[in-house]
Amino acid sequence: MDEPLFVIPLWADLIAVGLGGIQGALFASGFRGERRLDMLGVAIIGIVMGMGGGLIRDLLLNVPLTTLQSNWYLLTATGAALFGMLLAGVFQRLNAVIVVLDAVVIGLFGAFGTSKALGLGMPLVPAVFVGVCAAVGGGILRDVMMGLPVAIMHVGSLYAVAAGAGCLVLAGSHTLGLPLVAAAIIGASVTAVIRILAVIFDLSLPEQRMLYRRKVAAETTAIPIIKT
Amino acid sequence: MDEPLFVIPLWADLIAVGLGGIQGALFASGFRGERRLDMLGVAIIGIVMGMGGGLIRDLLLNVPLTTLQSNWYLLTATGAALFGMLLAGVFQRLNAVIVVLDAVVIGLFGAFGTSKALGLGMPLVPAVFVGVCAAVGGGILRDVMMGLPVAIMHVGSLYAVAAGAGCLVLAGSHTLGLPLVAAAIIGASVTAVIRILAVIFDLSLPEQRMLYRRKVAAETTAIPIIKT
Amino acid sequence: MDEPLFVIPLWADLIAVGLGGIQGALFASGFRGERRLDMLGVAIIGIVMGMGGGLIRDLLLNVPLTTLQSNWYLLTATGAALFGMLLAGVFQRLNAVIVVLDAVVIGLFGAFGTSKALGLGMPLVPAVFVGVCAAVGGGILRDVMMGLPVAIMHVGSLYAVAAGAGCLVLAGSHTLGLPLVAAAIIGASVTAVIRILAVIFDLSLPEQRMLYRRKVAAETTAIPIIKT
Repeated sequence: MDEPLFVIPLWADLIAVGLGGIQGALFASGFRGERRLDMLGVAIIGIVMGMGGGLIRDLLLNVPLTTLQSNWYLLTATGAALFGMLLAGVFQRLNAVIVVLDAVVIGLFGAFGTSKALGLGMPLVPAVFVGVCAAVGGGILRDVMMGLPVAIMHVGSLYAVAAGAGCLVLAGSHTLGLPLVAAAIIGASVTAVIRILAVIFDLSLPEQRMLYRRKVAAETTAIPIIKT
Repeated sequence: MDEPLFVIPLWADLIAVGLGGIQGALFASGFRGERRLDMLGVAIIGIVMGMGGGLIRDLLLNVPLTTLQSNWYLLTATGAALFGMLLAGVFQRLNAVIVVLDAVVIGLFGAFGTSKALGLGMPLVPAVFVGVCAAVGGGILRDVMMGLPVAIMHVGSLYAVAAGAGCLVLAGSHTLGLPLVAAAIIGASVTAVIRILAVIFDLSLPEQRMLYRRKVAAETTAIPIIKT
Repeated sequence: MDEPLFVIPLWADLIAVGLGGIQGALFASGFRGERRLDMLGVAIIGIVMGMGGGLIRDLLLNVPLTTLQSNWYLLTATGAALFGMLLAGVFQRLNAVIVVLDAVVIGLFGAFGTSKALGLGMPLVPAVFVGVCAAVGGGILRDVMMGLPVAIMHVGSLYAVAAGAGCLVLAGSHTLGLPLVAAAIIGASVTAVIRILAVIFDLSLPEQRMLYRRKVAAETTAIPIIKT
């Protein structure tokens, strides 16, 4: 009963965890002012982003947490967070890298969540829900821990839409007979492409994220002014 | 082991989920200014409020999450959130409807939580705790995701008191021999009545919520003033 | 499968829960201004701090939540919260008591988390992770519910370091052959001593907490000024 019928290969899972860790550390390194985190704080956010999606997925599926069954997940997440921290200066200038990384991470976590749920026999609608929660859950934890407005509620609606669309394509095509691995690859790609297109065609992120960063910056600048 | 000994009928569970979804969407639609949510944000809050109580209950009970075992829960929560969103303009004026809805939702989630816990053989005190967490947990998730002060800590203490009293009556009367269904009906009613009486007799909500809304509004108004 | 192979004695668990409850209530009583909590709010924070570590530990381990299997945990946490509240005036002046209490609570929750994880056969790295989450998780929940910046991210990095070091010593010495009980006592002591030394040698807490309190106070004072 506790043994999942569908097993995501360790290497694939670790790639998602590692990319999530890098992405989290890059995000967390970008803050200045009162919201600036020390190195340990950046590492914690990297670990939260690398591990969060898998933890939330397995809690919702009520199965043993895969990311805690081997040493590799935490070592990968921590290593990736440190790597992301070291390269933050370089990556921050390569905006395209961050956008693509972000899109791939959401796609992978969403696809792993929905395909594991389907593999455990969960119906289509909740399987899509588990995928979306796995895709966006790490980001919600990150925002709550950093004291930021939860991005998915205010600036990042398209995160949830992109994740939902990809997971729905995955679950739908699997229900129609496509093998789970093929469906997962298609689903992850759909999510990532929607996210990247949304950025290219200005549907949400770049300006919004900039506004968001600027707003956060404005607030952190404003507070000391008020105090004096 | 994984099979709960006590099963809440699907229709009763779906009524609670649907009312929670409507209530969440009504609440989330009521915000203006910086905290205003787009349609997707309102829908997410509706789904969180409809699903949150059951998810928290089953996580605490360490049983498979009932709300993810069938397509109906998410479809109901989503439909209810859309319905609440469409009718927000009408309902906002019918303040009594919101108050009663709120009271009934807390009563149902609390009663389902405690009776499921008792049905699984949990002792009285933690069974009451699970009911209270199920009753107020969705609201805590909602407040955290919307970046609001957590209502239960500041303006809504009576939420927890009302839920606690109803769940205690449920668990106590069941321990004294009353069948679980009868005890659950009485418990849900006690919670709902305490909440409604608290509003009628001004014990907390109406002014406090207004103050609370006003405070939130004041803050969101204040911020742009600072920036200019 | 659901039966843990390693059982923490009830009395030891209840001591940790009780000390956590006292510590939470003392912390929550210390706030003034807009963040001031009513009695019920202080009690809720005490219960969250007493129960949170154990709940998070067991959720991560995917085992039935020990703290909900008997009436004693909640009764102890609630009693301890009330006790902490009543004595808050006295304790606040005995700063050394709060610091030591805090250090002991983190040490106990960390050691119980890691040793239970090892007893269930979890590998070393995730077992340390579970211990750290159990040690700092209650504080994260507390900060999120009180609308405070999450301490571990900003002012309390040494919490995570102290917990991590103690849990690592525990897991390492057990792997090298030390019996679990002895390893747990050493691990809890390492965490507590690091925390206390950090305070004595000014490595983080006393000024930072004061700055933190002062900052929070300044903000709550600043807001009404803005409003007028």
